[in-house]
This record gives sequence, structure tokens and C-alpha cells, in this order.
Amino acid sequence: MAETRFISDLFRRLAGSGLGSLGRGRANQDTVDMCHSLLGTRSEVSGLVLARHILDRLEQATQEDRHAAFARIAAEFGPDETRLQHALATYVPGDVTAARRLHFAAEPRTQELIRALNRVPGATARLVKLRAHLLRETRGNPELASLDQDFRHLFASWFSRGFLELRQIDWRTPANILENIITYEAVHEIRGWDDLRQRVGDPDRRLFAFFHPAMPDDPLIFVEVALTREIPGAIGAILDPTRKRIAPENARVAVFYSISNCHGGLRGISFGNFLIKQVVEELRRDQTQLDTFVTLSPVPGLRKWLEEQVNAEEPQLPARHVAALRDLAPDTAPDPAVLREITAFYLTRARRARGGALDPVAHFHLGNGAMLAHVHAGADESVRGIENSWGAMVNYLYDDARIEANHQAYLTNSEIALSSEMRSLSAQAAKR
Amino acid sequence: MAETRFISDLFRRLAGSGLGSLGRGRANQDTVDMCHSLLGTRSEVSGLVLARHILDRLEQATQEDRHAAFARIAAEFGPDETRLQHALATYVPGDVTAARRLHFAAEPRTQELIRALNRVPGATARLVKLRAHLLRETRGNPELASLDQDFRHLFASWFSRGFLELRQIDWRTPANILENIITYEAVHEIRGWDDLRQRVGDPDRRLFAFFHPAMPDDPLIFVEVALTREIPGAIGAILDPTRKRIAPENARVAVFYSISNCHGGLRGISFGNFLIKQVVEELRRDQTQLDTFVTLSPVPGLRKWLEEQVNAEEPQLPARHVAALRDLAPDTAPDPAVLREITAFYLTRARRARGGALDPVAHFHLGNGAMLAHVHAGADESVRGIENSWGAMVNYLYDDARIEANHQAYLTNSEIALSSEMRSLSAQAAKR
Amino acid sequence: MAETRFISDLFRRLAGSGLGSLGRGRANQDTVDMCHSLLGTRSEVSGLVLARHILDRLEQATQEDRHAAFARIAAEFGPDETRLQHALATYVPGDVTAARRLHFAAEPRTQELIRALNRVPGATARLVKLRAHLLRETRGNPELASLDQDFRHLFASWFSRGFLELRQIDWRTPANILENIITYEAVHEIRGWDDLRQRVGDPDRRLFAFFHPAMPDDPLIFVEVALTREIPGAIGAILDPTRKRIAPENARVAVFYSISNCHGGLRGISFGNFLIKQVVEELRRDQTQLDTFVTLSPVPGLRKWLEEQVNAEEPQLPARHVAALRDLAPDTAPDPAVLREITAFYLTRARRARGGALDPVAHFHLGNGAMLAHVHAGADESVRGIENSWGAMVNYLYDDARIEANHQAYLTNSEIALSSEMRSLSAQAAKR
Amino acid sequence: MAETRFISDLFRRLAGSGLGSLGRGRANQDTVDMCHSLLGTRSEVSGLVLARHILDRLEQATQEDRHAAFARIAAEFGPDETRLQHALATYVPGDVTAARRLHFAAEPRTQELIRALNRVPGATARLVKLRAHLLRETRGNPELASLDQDFRHLFASWFSRGFLELRQIDWRTPANILENIITYEAVHEIRGWDDLRQRVGDPDRRLFAFFHPAMPDDPLIFVEVALTREIPGAIGAILDPTRKRIAPENARVAVFYSISNCHGGLRGISFGNFLIKQVVEELRRDQTQLDTFVTLSPVPGLRKWLEEQVNAEEPQLPARHVAALRDLAPDTAPDPAVLREITAFYLTRARRARGGALDPVAHFHLGNGAMLAHVHAGADESVRGIENSWGAMVNYLYDDARIEANHQAYLTNSEIALSSEMRSLSAQAAKR
Repeated sequence: MAETRFISDLFRRLAGSGLGSLGRGRANQDTVDMCHSLLGTRSEVSGLVLARHILDRLEQATQEDRHAAFARIAAEFGPDETRLQHALATYVPGDVTAARRLHFAAEPRTQELIRALNRVPGATARLVKLRAHLLRETRGNPELASLDQDFRHLFASWFSRGFLELRQIDWRTPANILENIITYEAVHEIRGWDDLRQRVGDPDRRLFAFFHPAMPDDPLIFVEVALTREIPGAIGAILDPTRKRIAPENARVAVFYSISNCHGGLRGISFGNFLIKQVVEELRRDQTQLDTFVTLSPVPGLRKWLEEQVNAEEPQLPARHVAALRDLAPDTAPDPAVLREITAFYLTRARRARGGALDPVAHFHLGNGAMLAHVHAGADESVRGIENSWGAMVNYLYDDARIEANHQAYLTNSEIALSSEMRSLSAQAAKR
Repeated sequence: MAETRFISDLFRRLAGSGLGSLGRGRANQDTVDMCHSLLGTRSEVSGLVLARHILDRLEQATQEDRHAAFARIAAEFGPDETRLQHALATYVPGDVTAARRLHFAAEPRTQELIRALNRVPGATARLVKLRAHLLRETRGNPELASLDQDFRHLFASWFSRGFLELRQIDWRTPANILENIITYEAVHEIRGWDDLRQRVGDPDRRLFAFFHPAMPDDPLIFVEVALTREIPGAIGAILDPTRKRIAPENARVAVFYSISNCHGGLRGISFGNFLIKQVVEELRRDQTQLDTFVTLSPVPGLRKWLEEQVNAEEPQLPARHVAALRDLAPDTAPDPAVLREITAFYLTRARRARGGALDPVAHFHLGNGAMLAHVHAGADESVRGIENSWGAMVNYLYDDARIEANHQAYLTNSEIALSSEMRSLSAQAAKR
Repeated sequence: MAETRFISDLFRRLAGSGLGSLGRGRANQDTVDMCHSLLGTRSEVSGLVLARHILDRLEQATQEDRHAAFARIAAEFGPDETRLQHALATYVPGDVTAARRLHFAAEPRTQELIRALNRVPGATARLVKLRAHLLRETRGNPELASLDQDFRHLFASWFSRGFLELRQIDWRTPANILENIITYEAVHEIRGWDDLRQRVGDPDRRLFAFFHPAMPDDPLIFVEVALTREIPGAIGAILDPTRKRIAPENARVAVFYSISNCHGGLRGISFGNFLIKQVVEELRRDQTQLDTFVTLSPVPGLRKWLEEQVNAEEPQLPARHVAALRDLAPDTAPDPAVLREITAFYLTRARRARGGALDPVAHFHLGNGAMLAHVHAGADESVRGIENSWGAMVNYLYDDARIEANHQAYLTNSEIALSSEMRSLSAQAAKR
Repeated sequence: MAETRFISDLFRRLAGSGLGSLGRGRANQDTVDMCHSLLGTRSEVSGLVLARHILDRLEQATQEDRHAAFARIAAEFGPDETRLQHALATYVPGDVTAARRLHFAAEPRTQELIRALNRVPGATARLVKLRAHLLRETRGNPELASLDQDFRHLFASWFSRGFLELRQIDWRTPANILENIITYEAVHEIRGWDDLRQRVGDPDRRLFAFFHPAMPDDPLIFVEVALTREIPGAIGAILDPTRKRIAPENARVAVFYSISNCHGGLRGISFGNFLIKQVVEELRRDQTQLDTFVTLSPVPGLRKWLEEQVNAEEPQLPARHVAALRDLAPDTAPDPAVLREITAFYLTRARRARGGALDPVAHFHLGNGAMLAHVHAGADESVRGIENSWGAMVNYLYDDARIEANHQAYLTNSEIALSSEMRSLSAQAAKR
């Protein structure tokens, strides 16, 4: 039964009774004051009416007003000080019950506020969008970043892996969901419905997405898959509308050629890790002859890092590569052989503080237990492909037999699993 | 796609790889040690394998072993002490960011443990059952009660009203759900499938339930409704399998004659409040001619309270009633007129410390904004009906125009809304 | 369970066994010979294999080969002559059993052939398409027209009103169905997905279609509805993507602005008659405030008939109108007042041999019991609108209280129900 | 959208308009006269109203009145005599178009009547029940048998294999469908919901049914399957509620232990043939390790045939068996070894006029291409099992590699496929 319809009906009915004034009377009330009222009311109905008003207000506010509201909420919805002081006074180090008392007493009332807003049917998606707004404001605003911790904490609980559902998206999927897919594709833009149709409807294409039950029409993350005979070395052939389709039972390879997170407001909430593993299981069950599971991935951080290297006083990159890059004419890519070398160098040697690969896509797949298998020059001729990596792309291989060992080695020792091809290339690239 | 099947497939596959040993190797590991491992692992797959093992273990354990495991978990999964000491050291009263740091630092790791267990597909229902076990052990064990706070805190977040779905249950409902309804009915026992069939399948009967998406076959709470011409004064006629059915369009009254909470493990998590209001909306939409929404409710606490009164030194109940009760022959009910009076007295004057009605059913409906409308003697001749209240039952009336005002008056001033009939009866009952 | 998948699996398995040869061995067999084999086999599996081959062959054949196959089928699959002669010999006029014997004995084996082809899962849609091919060939080929009788007879039985299902199409409808809607719209072309989205997804638009269970993704007929405040006098405002949307609860009028039959192969099989009546019921239930149900319809036969009138020796049209039309400059429409008069004249006086309105759209709605309510000049400025009727359009009004009386009067006496406006206009138009 | 609801709404609305009288006015009209009116009306709405009245009347009539109505319908709804005489007059032997004219002209108007009744939503199931009534009356009434030909002809067209859908029935199936399964089980009675639960819900049990889209809650035929380690030799172990369940992945054998036709009114309409083959495909896909597909079937005609043999002047059964049977004490079964021999003799040598096996169950499975594999004495100790066959049961084996060859040999030459065990037993049994 449509929950939102229920609320609409209820609200319409209430408008006739005394409670209706609740909404109307508040026309002049400040949004943040309404938040205080929301936490103050003991009536569930009034609470819902208020919560819906607050969501409407925050959504319709100008960026400036919303920023101000967030800032006041962050400042005014701290913990119950009396309770907190009591908990502090009775705190005994090492006493778990006392610590728990401290924990609950110190809970900022922002969390209760967010939970109260979430009681409105359909609110979860709206809160995710609000957090996206909030995240845009946090830079340089530590008090907003602090408020964001509460969103993130609650979202991590609500978007628990156990609540998510994997669904295949195909040409029989409702149009409103497909429209979202078009909007959300972040890696290789979907150019309208014809392009979408081939990505979800062709016999050798698959698209899988995770959904949360509170947002049944709105995917959280999705992965696009091409079924092919060989591991592909360029994205063009995958996306080409005139390419020759193959029957799925003739495919040997499943290529994950695009993974898109759909909601900025879910940043930091992880579910991508499992998506690929689960999709591998689904594909295997449907097409038992598939024996290779591999990505065709961009190298988004390559050129930015190389630029830093070129400008660095003590570049990590061997001097001969630096020189070659310095000599590069404008709007020209390095020679393919060179490009492959420096890409391999970048992926294997450019590291984060804690040791992981610097490149975010590499970090994601290596953290999942994949192996860096191949590097291709001239693989993505799109504007973005050129801007990011002069068209270089990479295959990360998901090999069941080694995935868990790779994963552990990467997490524990920052060891990157390499194919023998990549081992040679990486060694070659590092020569001074 | 069946999430649980995915996990099974994955586990089967892993059994062949190195990770399989993860499970087997732990055959001798203690359950609580496995919980420590779970929080220690950074591998999502290992985490799932471990979490599933832990759930299996806790479910299959003897009550004694489970108690011991709960106690150790409560003791050993306190907060990260280093982090907590740091947060305490840097705490500044009134600083919301510092308070938030304290909140997160003081979070008992039990919460992280419960969240980690919940990542296993299907785990939510299992955790609810585990909490039911836990609750049975908390009496006299404050440290377990403290652990229960974490369950309750997380459940309140997961079972947010915004995530619940109302569904009508009828004779086309899947049998596994109907079987659960038979099991869960707590007020007027369902005596097998024939009895169920009339309660969900007859033209003048309805049954509505709230579901959570993570437990799609398992209702959380449900309400049974009879559509009638008149407000009923006894439950027998409602449940009688030989009663004359009426066409729903000839009904004027919707009678809520049974409300059952399905899961002891969700104690303290409220969703009943809204169930009735939402069912009223659904019924109205389907049968626009309905004009009266009323319960036929038990008075579960009546005899227990009367017994206390009879034995009390200074009973609250007028002396003439106390005398009448003292004179009552064993296994005899008071005269109907007397029974109605003392029931009215009990419902309107026996109060909780904070002012609400002592009777739990009365407290529930009055808190929802209902009005106490009628009291009936001889209304429930079942064993339980006699044991609880000598067969007395009550109608609480849900009147849209007054529901919100009643609700507010009850919450704020513990004022109980009464029909004029009840006002007289209550006044009469209080005469000395 | 996917029936077509079952057949595919079965066929794949059979390919390994002896039966596989059935298919392969027939590579050189003539399609019509395969039809004879199909009726000859007593094996259900062989029958399915053969039937599928025959469907494949007829679909993939050139138009010429298919025509030849149809002609041979028409000639070679007459009744069983022996049985027919026996039935003739024992026929006694007036004996219903003897007549029934004659009926079954005279049944052309084409019917058994079509039924046998229909046993293949998914065959119904394919047979509908084959009949569309056949219909294109029947002109001037009476033996093919005779074969078509069998198709039509069987389709009338299979597409019985009792088997059809009405569904609302909206923006949550699967994309493959929506794609069919785009393809099938025959009145006012849908210009891509954006245009479609407003026709099915806007709050004041509805689209309903009839489906047959054997063709679950393929609508048979659909109607597009606009919810408006007033009866519209032009199609442009309805289709305008920049128009102002209204909330459905503010609409008073439901406008049926396009009705499309989807399958040429179902010509002569009626289901449109009931579609509108059923959609009226659905709309009423959802938006109880609607009080006017009306079409905005083209007048497809107007100009063709006027041309005949202008060239006729004794035109039916009054001389003043004929003169006006003769004087019309090329590519010029008549004056709006004149256009309305002659449209009214055409709709009310140009008749079929049996008395019904000559205009096919008028005949359809009047036969349904609608009333001719308004005529508008300048109402459809599209190329087709100008070509058909110089842009004139009509409202047919579906008035519950009179629909059955109108329907009977039209069927029995060819009486056309007219609004008072139309009565005046028609009288005015007929003046010499 | 609920079609039946549409019709109800429409009828309710019509009751207010002039047409309502159509129904009321006819209160006194004879049912068969209403049938004449139905074929006479050109109004679709009136037609539906009439058709629904007729169905109601025929259902509610006494057996006697219904018989009389059927008889009158059979007599009065013959073909259009004028048209038929014309078709006869213009008939030319060998001219397929003239023959087709004869076919359509000779069509009894009963067919049009049945088609007209079928336009009422939900009518198909009602017509199936009416035919069941009719069939009970046909014995000794050739004119009713003749009417039944029309039902059978139309049902064969409507219940075409291509329209049917196979569904698995399990414990998540809606209760109203499960209730039908309990009612329809014809071979081994289902003793209530607990018995049903184990047959559809146990991990090693399956139940599959064919459905027609016009009867979505009402199965046409279903088969019950047990997954076992070995081919079973007795039904008791299969049905025993205390038996040890096995995990489905440990099963090697799928046993079809019960096949039930649900509707007497569909007698003569075949769909069982394919049910088993399709279920085999489904089981294989789900449990790839299954390698044996076999029935455990009753021998319903054994004792009846043996009795005839014992009483025959020239029995087909060898004299030593006849003697043994004559000597049998009352209420005593033959010795198991003897019982197996005579069962084998009966199944392989007792034949129909056209050569097929006399036993109906044997005829069904052998006609499907199964092989007679094993005979068991003491396999069905139920009352019916004893009455039919002294408890003997049979395994028919469905062996993919030989199914089509068996099927052809049986259909063409009445050859019965036998296991080597059965070949010996049958030879032994035939010894004089």
C-alpha cells in the first residue's frame, strides 16, 4: 500500500481538524525552530506533519538559507548537557555500563532529529539528497563536517549490506528506473535511450544495481557488464552501437566496463566492494561457460599525478620519463609504449600515505582483491579519457582462486597483485 | 535476486579456496573470540563468513552457553578506551563537536558488532530473535540490560516508521505468512486454518500488518478488523464461525478486535501507534460508507489490580466495591452492573506514576487519541477473558475529529477522553 | 517460469538425441510440406519442433515465397473430403446433430494447422504478425481472403473480451512496453521518449491499454487521456510540451484524445468498444470529481468525401457549399464557419449503405453510444490534420445516462445523438 | 486492474440507468429465452449483462432444470438454416472455399452462445464447471453429447498449450491456490494443511502445476515430485510425515508420485503430456545432479481386469494365474511374487482395441515415451491401493535419450518399452 498516499490522505484530513493549523500556523516559523518543536512534540502525528514541513523547507531553501539552517542545527542540537554532565560525573574508567551511559548521554540531538525526519515515508531519499547539499558546504566549515558525521553514522546503519538488494536492470525495467540510470552513469556517459537500450537490452550486455528498500526506484550503485570472447583493450568497441552482438553463450569473458555511484549523499558508505563479487556469482549461474571476470577501467589520476611529478623538485618518476613528458608538444599524448610504462609506474608506485595505490579506481579494485592484469594505450579516446590519462585504460582481473589472498595482502602489506605482464612492465618502467 | 542464495553460493565457492579454512579452522574457536575476530578483520568476505558462523553458534547454543556469551560480549566489547580517554581529555563543556567526539568515542563496540552481524543477508530477523533470548536473561542482570540498550538503539533506527510497509493480509496471501499470523496471534487464539480463513477471507473481515523490508515474510504487528452494522459488545459473536456474514458495503462500523505484536525481540520499538491510523485510512478508501472506528479490547490488568485493592490497607477503590469483592464466592464473577462500575473505575482512576492509565491496553489506545466509549460485562467468556477481567471488555473509539486533541490532552495532562456514558458510569463508580 | 526458455532448453537437448535430426533433416523440406508433416505427426514434441520451424520459415521468407506458401496452404488444407462426403450423405435438414457433423467435417484443416502452430510458446504474437502479412496479400486473391477467415475465426475466439486485461501505462511501466507504445501510436505521433514521458508520466495525463496474456509485453489497443478543466477545442494545447500541468484533483474533464489499434493482424477483432467504457470506470474510481468524458477526435474522411461531392453530378452537399469549395484557392482551408458547417453536414448526413455514419471515427464512437457534441475548426494544424479535414476536429461525449439509449438508437435506426449545438449547426448546414 | 470489479461497477451504474431494467425485467424470463436474446442483441453492454445472468441462472439451477436447459439449448441453437441451405446449394466437392462456406454455415449457434458467455470476465472457469455438469448428463443423452462437442472444441482452442503457464507451487504460494491443491489431489489424498506443507514446503519435495491466464488461481493439472537417493518401491515412505528429509543437492532421483487433473470440465483436453517433460527441464536446471526421472504410479485397472479374466470363458491370463486367483481367500492379496507377475502380464498384454495398454495410467506414461521399469508388490497399502491393485505399484522411467523413440514406437506399433527386469518378468508371467 502506498505509504506516501497514506500520509497525503492523513494530512488532507488533518487540514480539516485542529491539527491542520499546526502546519498553517507555522508559516512564519523558522525552519530550525520547527526542528526544535519536532524534538519537543510527543505526538506522532504532529511529528510527521512537522518533519514533512522541515524537509520541504530545507529542499526549497536557497543554498545560503540552507547553509545557515545547517549551521544552526549543528550548533543548537548538541547533547542534553544535564544528562551529559551527570554521565561524566558518574563515569568510571573501564566500566562498560558507565561508558555506555556516556555514549548515549553525549549523543548529539542532531541524530534524533535526523531519525525523526526519516519517519516521513519517502524521507530516506530526501535525506540522502540533503546530505549531498551538506557535503558541498563542509569544506572549510568544520562544524558542518561534524554535523555530517551524524548523517554518515546513521546512513551506515540504514544502508547496511544486509538491507540491500541486487537487481538486474534490463529493457523490461520500469522507465523511471532506467531514466535514473541514464542520469547517474558517471564513467561513460549514456547518450539517450538508444544508447541505454544497447547497454541493458543487448544479448551480450548486462547491468546490475544495488537498491535499498526505502528507495525502490532509485539505484545506489550499478555496474555495466559486456560479455565478450576476449579481454578488451579499448572502450570504443564496447560502446560502439554498430558493433557485432554475440550470443551470450558464446562469451568467455565478462567485462565490468563501468561502475557508477549514484548518490553523492552516500559518500563514504561502502557497498561497491560486494557488488562485483555478487554480480560475478549471478553471471556464473546464468552463463556457466564464463571463465574470466575482468574490468576495463579508467586511470583517472594519471595525468594529474604526472603533472605534479614534472613540476616536482625530486620526482619519484625516473628522469627519462620526466624528460619525455617535459618535451611533449601541447595536446599530444606520449608514445603508446611510453604511456604504458608510465601508467604501470603510476599504478604500482604512486601510493597513499597508508600505502594503498594512489589512483582511486586502482585502490578500489585492488582492495577488492583484483589483480592488475593489463594496461592499454589508446583505449579511451573520449575527452575525459584524454584529459585523465591520454586514453590509457586498465584491466583488473577478478580471479576467484586468488581474490581473498590478494585482498588480504593489499590490506595488510599494501602488496599489489600483478600479472606477469604487469610485473615486467612495472620493472621496465622503474628503470632509471 | 535471492541474497541468501548469493551468500550460500559464495560460501560454497570459498570452501574450495583458502578462505574455506576460515570457517573450518574455527571449529574450535570460542564464539566470543570469533566476535573479536569479526571486528578485527578488514576483509568483507571473511567478515561475512565469520558473522554467519557467530549467528549460527548463538542460535544453536544452549540457554546457558548463550547467557555466558552475552555476558562476555557485554563485558568485553566496551568502547575503545584509548580513544575515549583522549575524547575525555579534550572535552570542553558546551562544545558540540567535542561532545560528538565523546559520543563516538564512548560507543560500545557491541554496536559495531551488531551492525557487523547484520551485514549477513537475512540477519535482521535472526538478531530480533537473539534479542528476545537476551531480554529473557536481563532480569537481575544489569550488565545484560545494558547490552540490550545497544540492540534497542539499533533496532529503533532500523525499524524506523519510514521503512515499514502496511500490507493487507487475505486469503491470497502466501501460506508462510499466514502461518506466521496463526503463530503470532496473541489476543484471541487462531484455532487452525479454518479459523484463519474466516478472519482474513470473509467479506466482512480484514487483517492488516506492518512489515519491514528485511523481513518480508514476517509481520511485525497486525490488527484484525470486523466490519459490522453496530458496535459490538462481545467477542463471541465476532469469532463465531457460524455467524451471518454481511456484505462489506452494508457495514457502518469497523471494529479493531485484536492487535498482536509479533516479536518479543522488538519490545520497546513502537509502531503500533500508527498502525491503527493507517488502517483507518485504508478502510475509508475502500469502504467510504464506514463512519465508526472502534476497538473491542480486553482489560488485561483488571483482576490483578482489584486483588491488590482488596488486600490493600487503604484501597483506592470505594469501600462498597471492596466489600462486594471480598464477599464474592470463588469462581464467581461480580454482578454485571457491579463489574461495569469497577471496570470503569479501574480504567479511569488506576494510574501510572506519570499519570497515564495503569491498564496497558487502555494506555495504548488513549495514548493514540482514542476515547473510552463503552464497557461490557460478559463480553469475553474465554479462560483468559475470565482470568483477566471476569469477561469485561471495552470499546475505545477512534474519532477523527477529536483524536489529536485527545492525544495531546492525554500526553500532556493525563486526561482521559470519555463518552458521556462513561462519564456517568465513572462518576457513579466513584461514589463512596 | 519462462515457457520459451523451456522450449529452447528442450530443443537444445533434443538436438543431441535422435529427434534433433527432425529439424536438421528437414533443412531441404518445403515449408508447406512441413505443414503437412505437422498435421500428420502424433508426437507432441515433434509437433512443436516442426511448428517452430514453420513459423521461422514463414517469417524469414521473402514476400513472394510467403505469398506462394499461403496460396498452397489455402489450396491444400481443405477439409477431409471423405469425412465431409460422409457427413453430406447423412445430413438431414433441421437435425442439429447432423448439422454439427457437417460443421466439423467441413472444417478446413487450415484451422487445425493454425491451432498446431499456436502450441509453440510465444506463437500467438507471431501468428498475429503473419496474418498482417496475409491481409496485405488478400486484395484480389479471394483464396487468400478465404484462408484469412480461418485466422479471423480463431483470433476472435482467442482474443475474447473475457481474456483481455486492462492496464494503466505510466512512467513506471517497463521500457519494452513503452517502446511499443511509441511505435504503435497511430493518431498523434509520439516524438521520442520525452514526448512519451509527458503523455504517460504527467500528473494530468493517463494512458490505458488492453493486453492479452499470451502477449504480455505487447498492447492490443490503447487510449490516451488528458485531464483538463474544460472540454478542449484543439489538439495543440494537449500535446504542447510547455503547457501548464494541473493537479489531477483539479480536473473536471477526461479527454480521450487518441485511440490506437496496435496490430494490423487483429483487423476485424473488436475490443475498442469496451476499452473506453472500462477506462471511464477506472478514471471515475481514481478521480471521483470528474464529471465529463469526451473525445477530441479527427475527422479522417472529410476532405476525401468533399472532393467526391465537388466532382459528383448530383452532390448531396448543398450547392452553396459545393460552390464555396470549388472557389477555394489551392492550399487554402475554407473559412472556419463554413468548415464547421460542412463538417457537421458530413458527419450527420454522409452515411454507409446500412445507414451508419460514413466517417470511421464517427461510426466507432456513435456505435459506442457517444453523442456528437462539438465541431472545431483550426483544431489540428498537423500535416495529416490538414490533409484529412483542414484541421477540423470533433468532441464525442460519453454521457453515462444516455450511452445505452444512444447506442441502441444508432444500431437500430442509425439515429445519431446530437448536442443542441450540433442540432442547430447540422440544420444550418443543410440549408440549401 | 480487476476485470471483474470493472463489470461489477458497470452493472451497478447501469442499474441506475434504463438498462438496469434489462436485468430486472428479465426476472421472469426463461434462461433459454435469455440465451436467444443474448445472440440477438447487438449491444455489447446488454450482452454482458445477459451473459452474466445466464451464467448465474445455470449455476444456481437444480440439476433437473439445468438438464432441461441444456437439452433445449442443444435443440434450439443449431445452425442458421437459411445460410446452411445456401451453402449446401452452392457446395462444389473439392472446392476449399465452398467447403469453408459450408463449415461456417453449419456452425451450431451453440458455439456463438458459448463464446458470448465467455466474454464475461471470469466466465471461463464458470464454463468449465458448467461443462462438468453437462458431462455428467451426457450418458444416454446423445443430443447432450453433441452439445458437449461444442464445449470441447472451444476449450481445446482456448486451452491451447501455448497459453498455459507452468508454475512451481510451494509454501510461499497464496493460500487460496494451496486450498485448491488440497481439494484437487486425486491420487494420494492430502490430509489437511500439515500434510500439504510437507508436500510443497519440504526441501526434498516439489509441486508443479499448469495454469491458464483466465483462471490464475485455479490449477489445471499438477504433479507432485519427491527428490530421493534411490528409486522408491512404495508410496508409504514418500508420504510419511516422520520420514527423514534430505537436502535437495543430495538427491539423485526425481519421483513423480502423483499427477492430478483438476477439472472434470476439461476432460478430453490434453495438457498432461507436456507437464512431465517441462517439469523434468525445470528440475534439471535447479538441481543439475539429478540423473533419474521416474514415476511411482498406481495400477488402477488391475483387479477389475483380473476379475474379468477369472470370470471369462477364454481368459487371456495363463491358467495357473487364473487358478491362483480363484483360490484366493477373501480379503487376501496374492503372494507378492505372483502379484508382480500378473501385474506385469496385465500391463504388457492387456490392450485396447487400437493396441495401446489397457491400463489408463500405463497408457498415459507409455504414450509420453516412458519405459515400464519396475513393478512392486506391497507398495500402496491404502484402501484404494488395495482395491485397485492389491497394493501393486509401478515405476515408469523417463529416459531422455529414449523418450522420443519410445513414444513413436508406442504410438505407431503399440510397442511398450520395457526394462530388462520387466522383459524377464513379463516373459515369466506369460508362461503357461
